[in-house]
Amino acid sequence: MAVIAREASVSLSTVSKVLNGRSGISAETRERVEQLLHEHGYLRRGDSGGAGGLVEVVVEQALSSMWALEIVRGVESAVRRHGLNIVLTQTETRHDPGSTWIEGVARRRPVGVVLVLTNLSAEHKRRLRTRNIPFVLIDPAGSPDPDVPSVGATNWAGGVAATEHLLSLGHTDIAMITGPRDMMCTHARLSGFRHAMTAAGLTVPATRVVLGQFTRESGVAAGIKLLDSDDRPSAIFASNDMEALGVYEAARRLGLSIPDDLSVVGFDDIAVAGWMAPSLTTVRQPIAQMAVDAIDIVLRPHDGELADLRRELSTTLVVRESTARTKSF
Amino acid sequence: MAVIAREASVSLSTVSKVLNGRSGISAETRERVEQLLHEHGYLRRGDSGGAGGLVEVVVEQALSSMWALEIVRGVESAVRRHGLNIVLTQTETRHDPGSTWIEGVARRRPVGVVLVLTNLSAEHKRRLRTRNIPFVLIDPAGSPDPDVPSVGATNWAGGVAATEHLLSLGHTDIAMITGPRDMMCTHARLSGFRHAMTAAGLTVPATRVVLGQFTRESGVAAGIKLLDSDDRPSAIFASNDMEALGVYEAARRLGLSIPDDLSVVGFDDIAVAGWMAPSLTTVRQPIAQMAVDAIDIVLRPHDGELADLRRELSTTLVVRESTARTKSF
Repeated sequence: MAVIAREASVSLSTVSKVLNGRSGISAETRERVEQLLHEHGYLRRGDSGGAGGLVEVVVEQALSSMWALEIVRGVESAVRRHGLNIVLTQTETRHDPGSTWIEGVARRRPVGVVLVLTNLSAEHKRRLRTRNIPFVLIDPAGSPDPDVPSVGATNWAGGVAATEHLLSLGHTDIAMITGPRDMMCTHARLSGFRHAMTAAGLTVPATRVVLGQFTRESGVAAGIKLLDSDDRPSAIFASNDMEALGVYEAARRLGLSIPDDLSVVGFDDIAVAGWMAPSLTTVRQPIAQMAVDAIDIVLRPHDGELADLRRELSTTLVVRESTARTKSF
Repeated sequence: MAVIAREASVSLSTVSKVLNGRSGISAETRERVEQLLHEHGYLRRGDSGGAGGLVEVVVEQALSSMWALEIVRGVESAVRRHGLNIVLTQTETRHDPGSTWIEGVARRRPVGVVLVLTNLSAEHKRRLRTRNIPFVLIDPAGSPDPDVPSVGATNWAGGVAATEHLLSLGHTDIAMITGPRDMMCTHARLSGFRHAMTAAGLTVPATRVVLGQFTRESGVAAGIKLLDSDDRPSAIFASNDMEALGVYEAARRLGLSIPDDLSVVGFDDIAVAGWMAPSLTTVRQPIAQMAVDAIDIVLRPHDGELADLRRELSTTLVVRESTARTKSF
């Protein structure tokens, strides 16, 4: 710290303030000290944890909130077993926790950081590493850098399983409602769908893939677009359960019965999937296990070496009442 | 602090450790110092808050979790406007955050504590006051002491409104599924129901009030108990939306159509209430406003004087598709 104070031409107390995220320092000075800390590979001694210790959890605000809340619940349970508590932050803008957050993290000195459905900017990554605070992404929004540990689900395999289930019931005209374009899991699930269709010798017309936003509202709109026509698909694979609930509403408005007139498969298996009438066939993500694994990565002793891991946990098809054999089969 | 150290025959550093929740002190010593701090009316200078400051949120674990999660979301939003973050703790046992939690609070030094659906023991209350940490209960489980600030909803008035709505549709044989016996809101909602029935000149047979647990499962069981008979009520008022969803399932199993054969009213207006088919008529609790008011109470400057408040915010009847005129009307 003395070396850094000298090189930056500031006092020791200023370096300490930067490390601990205290106020009263100009942005310029903070930047210079941060840079030097980084260059010198300074690693702050991690907090020992124990009772009262904190794990930061950042969740995407608006997006698929039911799913995010279930992840939060899972992380809280996993963290509690270690006698720790979680600090919860909802992202201000899409996929980014913002600068106020990282200042707060510096001050709160958590034993680790879990980011759900968000990205980690190079700047935030550098600041966390400077302070020796380990981090992990759960279901990263984009494709994370290879040096960032992440835990996700087998989205591609899940997309294949959902599609093969519908194919096995005799469906050939299957439509898909996607997630938002900027999310990695959207593309993995769509690729799984296309792969299974192609492997079955079927082509997917462009009109059979409709953009969704992981919300019920987008599911209603996409469902009506697909179903309000004589030339409608006999099955829809929605990229998450909220979109599938939207398809239920679209079918209801159009007087179509599920599963008699239309089979529907979702993705996630949030609690509400089992409460609908008919209950929803869906691809289950192992949410509780994803949370346990993420905490495992964050709390493992690492001696300055960050774990370089990317785990994908298995999805499982949960067959309920929303899928049935095609009438023509 | 010097006076207390002398009276307790311990060092100043021991007193400081107790105040800050550090380890390495016997339970006996901690107890003695706590007691003296309390007797001397020692009030720790509150943390100034600002960026990175923390508000503790304790939520009941198992109970009506959808509702609790929505409250957490509301509190997080309310807290974020003040540049603060929340530390989330789920209760280990029913209605009580436990001793590990209070030690952690002493160490984390939050600017305030929000307890959702829990009780605050005399011991915890004393410890928080000793440290000058303000607290508030949201929807207290039991009847809180008069000196504990709380924010709730007008549960009695909500019960009246739900019942009057059913009466206005011509229903006279109305059953109620209650919440758990140990919760204040259970009794308030039931009293509201009884009041409205009596005011309409109707009696409520004992068989028309069935105990529920605020879960979907208990709603299914209570629904079947009430409906699997020729002598069934024409309407059911469920004490929360989860129980109402259970009644939907019970009606489905028995081949009864909502609202043609049965009208159903819930309580809370959690998101899923609007997603069901038919959508659920329910009594809305102003969850976001309850969170804002709770944070307002906690963050208000209080100079050692704790706010002595008990607020009940208005509920609103939200009429959707699950209620209809009786056929006989």
